[in-house]
Amino acid sequence: MSRQEPGPEPTIESQPPAELAPAIPLEEVGRIAERVKELIAAGDEAAAWQRLRQLHPADVGLILAGLPRTSTEALLEIMSPQTVTWVLHHMNPVEASRLGARLSIQTLSFVLDQVNPRHALTALQKLPLRRAQQVAEQLDQPIVESELLRQDPNTAGALMTDRFVAVDADAGVADLRRALEALEEDRDLLTYLYVRNAEGIPEGQISMVDLALAPADASATAIAAPLTAVVSVDTPAQECARLRRHYNLTQLPVIEGNQLIGVILPDALLGVTVEEDTRQMLQVANVPGERADGPMVASIRTRLPWLTINLATTFLAAATISLFESTLAQLVVLAAFLPVVAGQGGIGGTQTLTLIVRAIALGELVGMQAKRLLVREGILGLIHGIWLGLLVAAIAVIWQGNYGLALVLGFAMLGNMIIAGTVGAGVPLLMRRVGIDPAVASAVVVTTFTDVFGFLLFLGIAQAAISLLV
Amino acid sequence: MSRQEPGPEPTIESQPPAELAPAIPLEEVGRIAERVKELIAAGDEAAAWQRLRQLHPADVGLILAGLPRTSTEALLEIMSPQTVTWVLHHMNPVEASRLGARLSIQTLSFVLDQVNPRHALTALQKLPLRRAQQVAEQLDQPIVESELLRQDPNTAGALMTDRFVAVDADAGVADLRRALEALEEDRDLLTYLYVRNAEGIPEGQISMVDLALAPADASATAIAAPLTAVVSVDTPAQECARLRRHYNLTQLPVIEGNQLIGVILPDALLGVTVEEDTRQMLQVANVPGERADGPMVASIRTRLPWLTINLATTFLAAATISLFESTLAQLVVLAAFLPVVAGQGGIGGTQTLTLIVRAIALGELVGMQAKRLLVREGILGLIHGIWLGLLVAAIAVIWQGNYGLALVLGFAMLGNMIIAGTVGAGVPLLMRRVGIDPAVASAVVVTTFTDVFGFLLFLGIAQAAISLLV
Repeated sequence: MSRQEPGPEPTIESQPPAELAPAIPLEEVGRIAERVKELIAAGDEAAAWQRLRQLHPADVGLILAGLPRTSTEALLEIMSPQTVTWVLHHMNPVEASRLGARLSIQTLSFVLDQVNPRHALTALQKLPLRRAQQVAEQLDQPIVESELLRQDPNTAGALMTDRFVAVDADAGVADLRRALEALEEDRDLLTYLYVRNAEGIPEGQISMVDLALAPADASATAIAAPLTAVVSVDTPAQECARLRRHYNLTQLPVIEGNQLIGVILPDALLGVTVEEDTRQMLQVANVPGERADGPMVASIRTRLPWLTINLATTFLAAATISLFESTLAQLVVLAAFLPVVAGQGGIGGTQTLTLIVRAIALGELVGMQAKRLLVREGILGLIHGIWLGLLVAAIAVIWQGNYGLALVLGFAMLGNMIIAGTVGAGVPLLMRRVGIDPAVASAVVVTTFTDVFGFLLFLGIAQAAISLLV
Repeated sequence: MSRQEPGPEPTIESQPPAELAPAIPLEEVGRIAERVKELIAAGDEAAAWQRLRQLHPADVGLILAGLPRTSTEALLEIMSPQTVTWVLHHMNPVEASRLGARLSIQTLSFVLDQVNPRHALTALQKLPLRRAQQVAEQLDQPIVESELLRQDPNTAGALMTDRFVAVDADAGVADLRRALEALEEDRDLLTYLYVRNAEGIPEGQISMVDLALAPADASATAIAAPLTAVVSVDTPAQECARLRRHYNLTQLPVIEGNQLIGVILPDALLGVTVEEDTRQMLQVANVPGERADGPMVASIRTRLPWLTINLATTFLAAATISLFESTLAQLVVLAAFLPVVAGQGGIGGTQTLTLIVRAIALGELVGMQAKRLLVREGILGLIHGIWLGLLVAAIAVIWQGNYGLALVLGFAMLGNMIIAGTVGAGVPLLMRRVGIDPAVASAVVVTTFTDVFGFLLFLGIAQAAISLLV
């Protein structure tokens, strides 16, 4: 039910309200969620739903996604199927897909079977693709035939909707308005309409602003402008997000064999941007695709392989240390300083690495020479190394009163910070060059370098200068 | 010059082209940037500009921002002031602010003094605020008086434009269209218009779609819907981005004392989302606000304090190790295993931490109990700890043939992984509770915990079980 068509006041409370409630602060959503949980715990699901119903559907969905699964299912039994699809329709794709992942396939297919197939499809499109396919298979409605659910995930095809307006070159403004009107609530987020040539190839776009201002007798081509970007069904979602961001586009037309078959709307494009940023941030920490409240087995499957790989690299570090066992035996206090040089290198390397990974992702390094960035980070490592080297030397003197140790620590620190800077910049740049996503493995490679070289420099210099130390 | 008003064909090539060029892949932008650099190196700036001029202004700006400063300035001398503002106008705010930061205040004020004050203001609004103020002070035009340049950065006031449409309740569709028409190219990105009541308070919004479909004799109130969200000038930019994302809004009205004074457009809202995501990702690595190609002194100012704080925490770890000097002296090979337990804990803790920080930022933890997340991460730590503990014990047996050492390592690993999980989840959750941004200091706190407890557990158990080891 859309704002434009309030319709009759619902007779039972399980129906969605006619008008969208206003936005509220996140803290208030949190407080209401607590209250809803209390009501459900007291067995009063009806009162809980009554409280939820006064909220914007995006807030209803957020609370439903955060409740324990049994509470969510209890509330869904009170809500009408129309209300469930209304909630999904008004949620952003990222949050809707999170809610959809918490509902059982039975619940979802039961709900979607009872609503307008068009609404069911829109709701399905907001779910993770594999789940949407599973739900669609359970439906009595023939929604399973929709092309939209057959697209590769992470491509334009999976992001697009097939509800858009495209007219022939000889159409007029009246035709455009009629076609737009026919889309009903699906027109709400549209910002562009398209003009096709005789072969059906999209040749121009009409902004909603220009349509709003166009005289009734104007022709579609008279108010059309050239298309800035067109994507095909298999264009990666990441590239769609880049086009949206870089060229300030609010909508992307999708073609298949020169025919316009869909458009990607602003909420889907924003969803990709947010998911891509999330993936990148989690990727650097090696937890890509995980959810803080997802199934535990998925978390183990994501994290354990990386923890195991990392174990191999820490044993590389351990092997490095064991090369210097005799030196350590001569001066056991050296062991205490092992984490200092390697740890600082790790932090410095990660700082550089994160900066470069993000700059690559934002396309900021175009036209910039890798050499320039390497030199920049090398010099920064040198400057940081001088400061940290002096500091660590001073602490060694104060704490241990050992000038030789101070000298060894200072130089090892200086060397490792330079390595951290150049490796921290070099590894992601190299990965980009060979076509690997720099977020994927850069962190583990960089910290392995800073660990191994940290120990090698510190213990190597100590061994060489052992007469100064003992 | 906008698409809607192509105007006369420019007589000299320094003027912007009448139509926007289509989008091209990032790799192609990179290749053109290389070619442009070659041409400039050969002294042929005119040819370089001729090549650039065929691109979309967003690509022109991206290349200009990536070139060495002298090359950028050389190109700016060929481009007309109109062309420079045309480039800035079509760039997204994040990239425009990056380009603006590379241009000198003299260049910018020279350029902006020669264009329409309205265009100059739009260009200024895309620069970092402090820089925009400095440039505005140098201008002969009275742009310095604009309220827009006096707002706090990182608030709605600094993001908004004062070019919007708001009509009185008795206005009709014709009035709306006239007001929209009068905005000229500033109307391009608008998606909503507003209706004010007699006191000037905004009471409803009209979507561009509804305006496009409205009959000429309709009244504004008849096609208006209630406002979902209204922000005030001092609402934080981060909250604006949340409202945009969570409620699927494309435009936010900004009020001051109940009067509508501006709107935030989709490109500014996306810019905030991208900048906020960047800040968060860089914050976890302690390089917030830095740029891979920014001034070196800014990098040092950001990184060195964190490196220094981190040095303090590594010395805490060093002090922990030094407590066990006598144990290490008895069995020097223990030193080689120091990085293993602590390092794995650090990785595990960072995985959990990053996940929780991101979930908090996306508002995903609403209605979820901290206890549930802590227990979840504790159990994951236990499972990972069992696997890694067994693995590390096996390696110790194979490598050193020391069953006692294997036992010590295994239990220390198990303990530290549980600590990593609970601390990794607990620290950001606690920071949120006390109102600190969890991205800010969580990483350093968590790795300090995993380092100190890693060494304490490993060496403590070794000391207690020393008879099994030697």
